[in-house]
This record gives sequence, structure tokens and C-alpha cells, in this order.
Amino acid sequence: MNDPDRSPTFADWMRHIQQRTETALAALLPEPSITPERLHAAMRYAVLGGGKRVRPLLAHAAGELAGAAPGNVDRAACAVELIHAYSLVHDDMPCMDDDVLRRGKPTVHVEYDEATALLVGDALQALAFQVLAETPICDAPAAQLAMLARLAAAAGSRGMAGGQAIDLAAVGRQLGRAELELMHIHKTGALIRAAVLLGAHCGHGLGADELERLDHYAKVVGLLFQVVDDILDAEADTATLGKTAGKDAEQNKPTYVSLLGLTDARRLAEEMLVDARATLAPFGARAARLGALADYIVHRAF
Amino acid sequence: MNDPDRSPTFADWMRHIQQRTETALAALLPEPSITPERLHAAMRYAVLGGGKRVRPLLAHAAGELAGAAPGNVDRAACAVELIHAYSLVHDDMPCMDDDVLRRGKPTVHVEYDEATALLVGDALQALAFQVLAETPICDAPAAQLAMLARLAAAAGSRGMAGGQAIDLAAVGRQLGRAELELMHIHKTGALIRAAVLLGAHCGHGLGADELERLDHYAKVVGLLFQVVDDILDAEADTATLGKTAGKDAEQNKPTYVSLLGLTDARRLAEEMLVDARATLAPFGARAARLGALADYIVHRAF
Repeated sequence: MNDPDRSPTFADWMRHIQQRTETALAALLPEPSITPERLHAAMRYAVLGGGKRVRPLLAHAAGELAGAAPGNVDRAACAVELIHAYSLVHDDMPCMDDDVLRRGKPTVHVEYDEATALLVGDALQALAFQVLAETPICDAPAAQLAMLARLAAAAGSRGMAGGQAIDLAAVGRQLGRAELELMHIHKTGALIRAAVLLGAHCGHGLGADELERLDHYAKVVGLLFQVVDDILDAEADTATLGKTAGKDAEQNKPTYVSLLGLTDARRLAEEMLVDARATLAPFGARAARLGALADYIVHRAF
Repeated sequence: MNDPDRSPTFADWMRHIQQRTETALAALLPEPSITPERLHAAMRYAVLGGGKRVRPLLAHAAGELAGAAPGNVDRAACAVELIHAYSLVHDDMPCMDDDVLRRGKPTVHVEYDEATALLVGDALQALAFQVLAETPICDAPAAQLAMLARLAAAAGSRGMAGGQAIDLAAVGRQLGRAELELMHIHKTGALIRAAVLLGAHCGHGLGADELERLDHYAKVVGLLFQVVDDILDAEADTATLGKTAGKDAEQNKPTYVSLLGLTDARRLAEEMLVDARATLAPFGARAARLGALADYIVHRAF
């Protein structure tokens, strides 16, 4: 099964997962012909046709490792991606980051209006939990309840929303590396960990130590993702990034680059990649996709 | 059990449920000493120390009818109330209703700031689903998943958030009664139906026809609640209502009063009350609380 000669290349696999995620999301989002039409159109605008789908890729890679049915992983992956998408819509609003461009398109409150953007985010969050609850996607309903509790915790005040609050409080302040890490563990890390673990829980029979190993991998990859984002933000121009670049420095937000400098931030990313790969080693070839994803996350930056 | 001589009075029962809901919510909301402190303080500010707790009252009344353990109903009731509380925080924001007063206190974005209000709402929604998922509260995990799916649908774009979108689109337009009803069935009705049905599902063995009957009761009470709200808004002054009164007329929003006039709106409320009570009749004394709640919802207005 994991014979590299018979597997599609990593790039093919990524494209395949991205496409099936797009298809699944399009099917789960209400059609714009359903009342309220404008809200449903705006929800589709916010979610479809863009994004690297990093969280669904991680969910599917972990699901493959655990022998999960891809159709079940689709649901878990879409639930996580809907939470991510809602957070982008709200983060872009004028009272938060006030961004006008996202994935190369006008942000939702620019294309529609602020009230609609607020409701789009609210409705996408509800849809995420609906998607995860309304159909059986793993062996036992009790395990599925645990997945819901995990996603909710990852999204909430001790997860992603809490990370946003820590971020708000940090603007214009000097943060140490420990504080910066705390912010990112909440803001990006919690949802990335949920993506990996929900994908794995769609499968069967991983032991507690294996799940802990996956969780450590996910925690490292979550931070890695942020370090690389900071590097990208410092380096890229608006055209290649598809969003307004250099905003972190402009808003005097703390980043790994402002804290460590570009060279050391890159070195940190390479160290984390080594950690992630070492964590996966005991899984052998079953973890090939997860390893390749860690590589991908780092090397999109360099 | 339902001997009226041995039951506490309805007013005592209401106070009891309101108090246990307050206690349960206070225990479920993260302490303000937990990072991020300001967000957690604002979440508690938004939820605690106010509100009539109509949805928890309905959940407990339905739970009693179905023989549910009150501790389980507390969780379901709090989940619904957290969704309701988040919706108030977001609805009050400047891009929505732009209200500065709620339950006699400054609204969250006034007391804190807009970004915090946005995150408070987002985090309260996530907490609602966490509360409903993380502990067993009914006989079967599969039934609990169905409760989660129901609450998510009630909160989302084809429920409460959708109702807000319909409301936004209606400002300044002439609506017919059917359109007004469609708005309220989404905006208020969906969550009230969820409150009744989640409370009932914490119990045991209601038949499909009994659940359908409860759903009809909840649908009528949901609309009734809105008719009465419109009457209150037209009549009350800011002091007694604890929120800015007369805003509907000022914003040229359609209401049952603007559509039917005050006298006919009152008559409609009385008719709906008769419908609600007739729907409960086959349950006999077991539905006494639900009947009394319908009375309470109407007569707070007159």
C-alpha cells in the first residue's frame, strides 16, 4: 500500500485531497438559492475556491495512517476547515486586522458588508459542528462526541479564539519567545492539532502512545507553520502572498522574525522540521504523508 | 409527583431553575484568572447576572415532562443559553443593531471593545458545543450527537444566523405577515425549538408523535415570544425594558405591531397561547410547567 512506486507522487496526492475537499465543502455549504440567499452566497465566497487546505491535508494524512475511510475523513477535514474559514472572515473585519485582501480576493466584509461578514463567520462555525455531528464518521458515537468536544475546545477561548485575544493584547508590546509561543499554540496550533487528531480518530486502533506521538507532531507542525508564516510575511510582497504583506511589522505585532531575526527564524524552522520527522519515525512508511507535509510547510517559505 | 399541592409554585420553580442555570453557567465559563483573562472576564460579563433564562426554563420544563435528570438538562439548557448569549453580543455590535444597553448594562463592545465582543461571541458559540459534547447527558451517545446536530442547525444559516440575515435584508422594506413569520421562525424560533427538544431528549421514551407535539408547542411559543417582544418594544420605555426601546420603529424594522397594530398583535398572542395550551393537553399534568411558561411569556407583556 505504501510502496512509493505505486503511490501517487506527493504533489498528486495533495492536489487530489485539495480537490476532494473543495467538492466536499461545496456539497456541505447550502446552495445560494436557499433563503437567506445573500448569506449563503457569502458563505460560499468565504470558503470555496481558495486556500491551501493545510488542515484537510493533515487530517487526511493522519486518517491514512490510521486506516480511516476517506469519506469519513472528508467530514472531519471539512469541519476543521470551516472553523478555519470562519476565523479568517472575522479576523479580517475592521475591528480586528482590518484586511481588504485575502487569497487574492476582496475580503468578505469588503465584497459584501460588515454585518454579513459577522453572520458568515457565525454560520460557518455552526456548520462546522453540524457537519461533524449529523452523520456517523467513526466506529463509535462516543468517540465522535469526543471529536466534537476536541474541535470545540480547539476553536474556543482556550484555543483559537483565545489566541486571537492574546494577539490583540500583544499589539505594540514586547513579547518574549515563551509568550509568542503561547499565543501561537492557541491561535494556530490548537486547530492544527485538532485536524491531525480528528483525522486519526476517524480510523481504528491507534494506541495512546501513538496518539500522543501524533499530537506532538501536530504541536510542532502548528508552531512551524506560524514561524514560516512570519518568515513569509517579512519576505513576500503582496502579489505573491495574495494578502496584504508586511502588515505584522507595520502594526508592530511581535513575530518570530522580529524576535529572532530572519536567519535564526529560518534555523528554528529547520530544527522544528527535524523534531517533527523524528516524532514520526516509529510509524515508518505509514507516516510518509505527514512527513512530506511538514517538509511542504517549511519549504513553501524558502 | 405532579400533585399541585406538593409542587412548588410556578414562581418558585422559575426562580429555582434560573438560579441553577446561573450556577451551572458560572461553573462552565472559564474563570477570569485563566489566560486570556480579559476575554474570559468579558465572556462572563456577557452571560452571567442577567436574562430571564427563557430557553433554560423551556428545556427544564420539557426535561421534567420526559423524566430527565436535571443535571443533564442543565448542560443542554446552558448550551442553548450560550448560543443565545453569543447572538446578543454580536447583534448589539455597531455593524448590526448598534445597541449600547442590554439588560440594563453597557453592551459588551461598549464595556470592552469591538474586537473583544467579536471574540466573546465566537468563543461562547464554541463553548456551547463543547458543553453539549464533553459529558454524557442522555441514554445513548448517538442521541447526543443528534442533539448536537440539532443545536448546530438551529444556530446556523438555516436557523438563528439566517434569521439575522433575513432581518438585515428587511430593514426599510414592507414585509407581509408570511415573510415576517419566516424571519422569526429562523431568528428566535429555531433556538426555542432546540431548547424544548434538547430538554426532552435528555429524558426517556417519548414517542415520535409526542416529540412532534412538543415541537409544535415550541414553534408556537417561539413565534409567540416574538409577537410579545414586538408588543413590549412598542409599549415599554427604556427604563423598564433594560434595553433601548422603540428601536424597531426608529430603524423602520417590520414588527407584528407595525404590521397588525397593537390590538390585533395582542389578539394574535392570545390565539397562539390557546394553540400552545391545546397542543399540550394530551400530556395532562406532566406538561403543567410548559403551559405555565407559555402563559408567562404572554403575560409579561400585558
